[in-house]
Amino acid sequence: MRRTFLLTSLVLLALPSTGGMARAAVVRYEPKESDLKYVYGTMPPVATLQPGDVLETRTADCFGGVIQKPGDSLSSVKGDNPLTGPFAVAGAEPGDTLVVKILDLQVDGPRGVGALAPGFGALNPTNYTPMLNPPLPERIWFYDIDPVGKVSTFHAHDSAWSVKIPLTPFFGCIGVAPAGSEARSSVTPGEWGGNMDANEARAGNTVYFPVNVPGGLLFLGDGHAGQGDGEVAGTGIEVPLRARVQVDLIKKQAIRWPRFETDRMLMTVGAYRPLDDALRIAFAELVAWLHADYTISELDAYELLSKVASIHLAEMVDPNYVVIAGIDRRYLPPKR
Amino acid sequence: MRRTFLLTSLVLLALPSTGGMARAAVVRYEPKESDLKYVYGTMPPVATLQPGDVLETRTADCFGGVIQKPGDSLSSVKGDNPLTGPFAVAGAEPGDTLVVKILDLQVDGPRGVGALAPGFGALNPTNYTPMLNPPLPERIWFYDIDPVGKVSTFHAHDSAWSVKIPLTPFFGCIGVAPAGSEARSSVTPGEWGGNMDANEARAGNTVYFPVNVPGGLLFLGDGHAGQGDGEVAGTGIEVPLRARVQVDLIKKQAIRWPRFETDRMLMTVGAYRPLDDALRIAFAELVAWLHADYTISELDAYELLSKVASIHLAEMVDPNYVVIAGIDRRYLPPKR
Amino acid sequence: MRRTFLLTSLVLLALPSTGGMARAAVVRYEPKESDLKYVYGTMPPVATLQPGDVLETRTADCFGGVIQKPGDSLSSVKGDNPLTGPFAVAGAEPGDTLVVKILDLQVDGPRGVGALAPGFGALNPTNYTPMLNPPLPERIWFYDIDPVGKVSTFHAHDSAWSVKIPLTPFFGCIGVAPAGSEARSSVTPGEWGGNMDANEARAGNTVYFPVNVPGGLLFLGDGHAGQGDGEVAGTGIEVPLRARVQVDLIKKQAIRWPRFETDRMLMTVGAYRPLDDALRIAFAELVAWLHADYTISELDAYELLSKVASIHLAEMVDPNYVVIAGIDRRYLPPKR
Amino acid sequence: MRRTFLLTSLVLLALPSTGGMARAAVVRYEPKESDLKYVYGTMPPVATLQPGDVLETRTADCFGGVIQKPGDSLSSVKGDNPLTGPFAVAGAEPGDTLVVKILDLQVDGPRGVGALAPGFGALNPTNYTPMLNPPLPERIWFYDIDPVGKVSTFHAHDSAWSVKIPLTPFFGCIGVAPAGSEARSSVTPGEWGGNMDANEARAGNTVYFPVNVPGGLLFLGDGHAGQGDGEVAGTGIEVPLRARVQVDLIKKQAIRWPRFETDRMLMTVGAYRPLDDALRIAFAELVAWLHADYTISELDAYELLSKVASIHLAEMVDPNYVVIAGIDRRYLPPKR
Repeated sequence: MRRTFLLTSLVLLALPSTGGMARAAVVRYEPKESDLKYVYGTMPPVATLQPGDVLETRTADCFGGVIQKPGDSLSSVKGDNPLTGPFAVAGAEPGDTLVVKILDLQVDGPRGVGALAPGFGALNPTNYTPMLNPPLPERIWFYDIDPVGKVSTFHAHDSAWSVKIPLTPFFGCIGVAPAGSEARSSVTPGEWGGNMDANEARAGNTVYFPVNVPGGLLFLGDGHAGQGDGEVAGTGIEVPLRARVQVDLIKKQAIRWPRFETDRMLMTVGAYRPLDDALRIAFAELVAWLHADYTISELDAYELLSKVASIHLAEMVDPNYVVIAGIDRRYLPPKR
Repeated sequence: MRRTFLLTSLVLLALPSTGGMARAAVVRYEPKESDLKYVYGTMPPVATLQPGDVLETRTADCFGGVIQKPGDSLSSVKGDNPLTGPFAVAGAEPGDTLVVKILDLQVDGPRGVGALAPGFGALNPTNYTPMLNPPLPERIWFYDIDPVGKVSTFHAHDSAWSVKIPLTPFFGCIGVAPAGSEARSSVTPGEWGGNMDANEARAGNTVYFPVNVPGGLLFLGDGHAGQGDGEVAGTGIEVPLRARVQVDLIKKQAIRWPRFETDRMLMTVGAYRPLDDALRIAFAELVAWLHADYTISELDAYELLSKVASIHLAEMVDPNYVVIAGIDRRYLPPKR
Repeated sequence: MRRTFLLTSLVLLALPSTGGMARAAVVRYEPKESDLKYVYGTMPPVATLQPGDVLETRTADCFGGVIQKPGDSLSSVKGDNPLTGPFAVAGAEPGDTLVVKILDLQVDGPRGVGALAPGFGALNPTNYTPMLNPPLPERIWFYDIDPVGKVSTFHAHDSAWSVKIPLTPFFGCIGVAPAGSEARSSVTPGEWGGNMDANEARAGNTVYFPVNVPGGLLFLGDGHAGQGDGEVAGTGIEVPLRARVQVDLIKKQAIRWPRFETDRMLMTVGAYRPLDDALRIAFAELVAWLHADYTISELDAYELLSKVASIHLAEMVDPNYVVIAGIDRRYLPPKR
Repeated sequence: MRRTFLLTSLVLLALPSTGGMARAAVVRYEPKESDLKYVYGTMPPVATLQPGDVLETRTADCFGGVIQKPGDSLSSVKGDNPLTGPFAVAGAEPGDTLVVKILDLQVDGPRGVGALAPGFGALNPTNYTPMLNPPLPERIWFYDIDPVGKVSTFHAHDSAWSVKIPLTPFFGCIGVAPAGSEARSSVTPGEWGGNMDANEARAGNTVYFPVNVPGGLLFLGDGHAGQGDGEVAGTGIEVPLRARVQVDLIKKQAIRWPRFETDRMLMTVGAYRPLDDALRIAFAELVAWLHADYTISELDAYELLSKVASIHLAEMVDPNYVVIAGIDRRYLPPKR
């Protein structure tokens, strides 16, 4: 991949520089409640960034901030996963790839929320896996956020026990406008990224998206201070975030599904259901990536992944499920 | 079968004591080809072990050792996953739990084998996900095993590139006789364990199985010198193994599905398809385990797992798929 | 758009009366190619109908009419399933139910088309069930339409054999604007109806949809002159249609998923994947319908359906799959 | 297919005669409770039939007859789906096909039973789709059997309403010993047939099974006096049966999955989960059958089925789910 990334004062370990020198702007955007969006779709951007620009912004938690204290109810939530954005990237055209390097994420408040919501979860009936059994009760857990000790605290509801969980903040929602003039709910992941609930979307990592519309249109939201694999009960530790991300473009290189890069790994996303098909999508993309960018045949890549691949089953609770396939860089063949 | 009695000096931290200081035997069993089994089922044991006994034995590779050199063909394989055993454990009765602590596993030969077999794999049609497309070709890869450097070497088929992969030997097959008089193929995982292709079955870890028939009847086989998550092309690095395991019993405590314990983790197994249901099984078992053995309600356990659980998607290529749900011991509530 | 007012003489047995004898208009709408739509979404209507109005219109075939003769290629298709509409219904508000009685459907041309398109079909890899195997070839079949004999003719491609198939024209696509500001591709079925590929959408039957936006916004397209259950190779006998439908409203009664009524049956639609979940949705809706409108408890309805339900597996080839659950009217309890 | 069927006094409409004349025996077998089996497996036959012989026997209902009156509980059931047999067929060898023509089935008692059993059903959690919700209650419905009027009567539990359902008796369980030395539970369908819960197994129809072991070993049981598609709540109208079937062999012709033939249809069975894969299996078998026995290419068969196939979704409640793909004989190409 050739990257047109501009040199900035930021240290962009994962992004090779092109050698040129340019000044990157820092764009600050503070959303009002009325600015929040509930679909990934084509709409006027709230700001337009230049490739290389750094965006500093905030995101609301998945409940729009209405769950604050014991007694607050999910019935007061206006819309799930309110999104900050969209942010256009100047020059982005369909067929390009949008690059988002996550520079910094901080929990933006003193508490996180977990919730058991009837109709949401991997071990209870949902809108799309309905059953006739009595529902589980709605229940809410509050997590203390300790930004200094970098931990949150789980408090059991039915006993006095509590336990600390390290803070690992990430975007539950990060995505772009879908292709084909679709607009997709902020609770759904797919080719446009979206509600992937993948802790790969954390500081230090880079996310790649297909550009489907002029400007690409980046949406951010649904911060999690931590989350287990599968997000089985339906939520992570739901928090507002302060975020700093840097955007860039790879011109005239198209991808079909989001990708992640970390210092250590290359990763591809598959999102649909059942998990079987999400896995197939993620691995078909990873085989294709390895074959396209590295000197290895498709069948050799398939065999190699059978021996060394990693799988992160990010969530099985949103309308579509997310599987992330990865390979450690130490197993990569030479670049083409 | 030679049986020699020795006092073991093993510290069996994870094993419930069998009632004070006792003499544990080391049982050595060397299978002949005609001794190998191809189903998990109820049949006369090749040996009977006392609780606490250490078994030293060997397992053939998944091809029965017939793939040795370029040109050898999968058509010469007599049966997949030949199994060593079964080993009865004296006193095991339905309703008990069989404990298998894996003490040592060594690759038992100079090479491992990977194979692309038409009808096997996550990204090609199979007997149970058939399609009309032309098949992928049969192809075999050989891996050099370096027991000193503790690595194997992958050699690309379509280029000159090679790469080293750390040795992490484990049993692809470890299981017991199923319940209800069933006999199940050595390629299938389920409540009886079986072909779980889970690298959790490695030295240092403990596996728990339901005892479904008198003696429990332990089967071992299908060694892997390494394997990626999902085992996507259908094989790991297939090797024969030399194995040392210690068996024990937990009387009058029944489990429904296999469990693993490591120094760091508690883990439960779900095996069926689609992966969605394998995941549900594994987590329903983990919630039940936490609630039964630790002071936490089911709903608190569900919420906690949504924040801290780990998922290992072991394989999506055998007739049933395997998902392993885990929790780090540092998140465990007090024991009941 | 010409609008001519006529007194209809139609007997609308299945339609709730709109309040006494009223004058129903016949609205004729002839779409130009530039009027066709490719998403179900919220957009200005091409016409607004009064409840009770009869709409006469045409729909293009799923290829936009570009496949006309041997040698034509799917690569020339501009967009799949071009849709006629949307048609607003005056007074429709979220929470209402839109009623569409299909009065007449005629194949609007001398030929139908079937196609094997790489990436589409139940027995070959697709975008959402990808595999590494070589694709099946693109192939197109032409069907002669005999409107007098009411048959089409299949001609084998690889031999001289042909066979006649009765004409059973229906809308592959019939749906409304989705909820939550989503816009969904014309190839996808869901709560909004859409590309259900269900032959229940034929003359004589009535379809019910949730009204999600003011006006409801009805879209029509993708005519099939016939289709097998499952639509397994990815297409029916694809044809343009001349259509006559009558719209009506049920005010302040909400449904979650589309429903069909025929002289003989009540039916509910479930659309997602895997089929397991589509089936669960359809039956959860049917149990709820029976319990809400007839004097039967949910558990009695569940038991009764286990003994007498019908299932129509409409298609397993679109991004979401469609299962239709039905009950014969002779098994209905008394109305509430 | 060449059939070695022997001429008997029976009228075997669907089975072409070979022209020879031979006497077929009628074998009567009355099982005692201790003779009933709970797995499909390799075991000594209760009787050996000659090809062409007619077997007259009885089968117990799926509860072993212990549910007789209000207050009886599922906890008293000793084993689900007790099976009559196995019956060996002389001369049957692996690689042959076993033919079973169902001549007559009569309900063998005055009542049928339906049950809601926690852990069984498509709309409630099961052992393999577990959830944390409270279970549905156990509940039993009794159906009056009227053999003269050929109807059964459903009585609502929660109201006074009742409705008549036509009697359509069939074997819920009909199968053979599995391949590979497996033994499979009487509640599970698969390549061996088994608990297919398919009303295609009714009088007048012919079933074909792969012969996996010498003698084939036919098992029968689990009579249903009627059942809806999908058997969604987990049971049909469960009854004992008096049965008359005729067996035959097709030598040296192997099939992989069961098939049905009726006067009007050819049908193939797929059994696994999710339903997506059961459907793929059934259609892959049907395409293969059409191509092997009729003058049509695989791709032409695929296209034709997309236009005229029928799908019967037999059940989604047993451990494996059953989809039956069919084609009307009027669409068959000339025989090879």
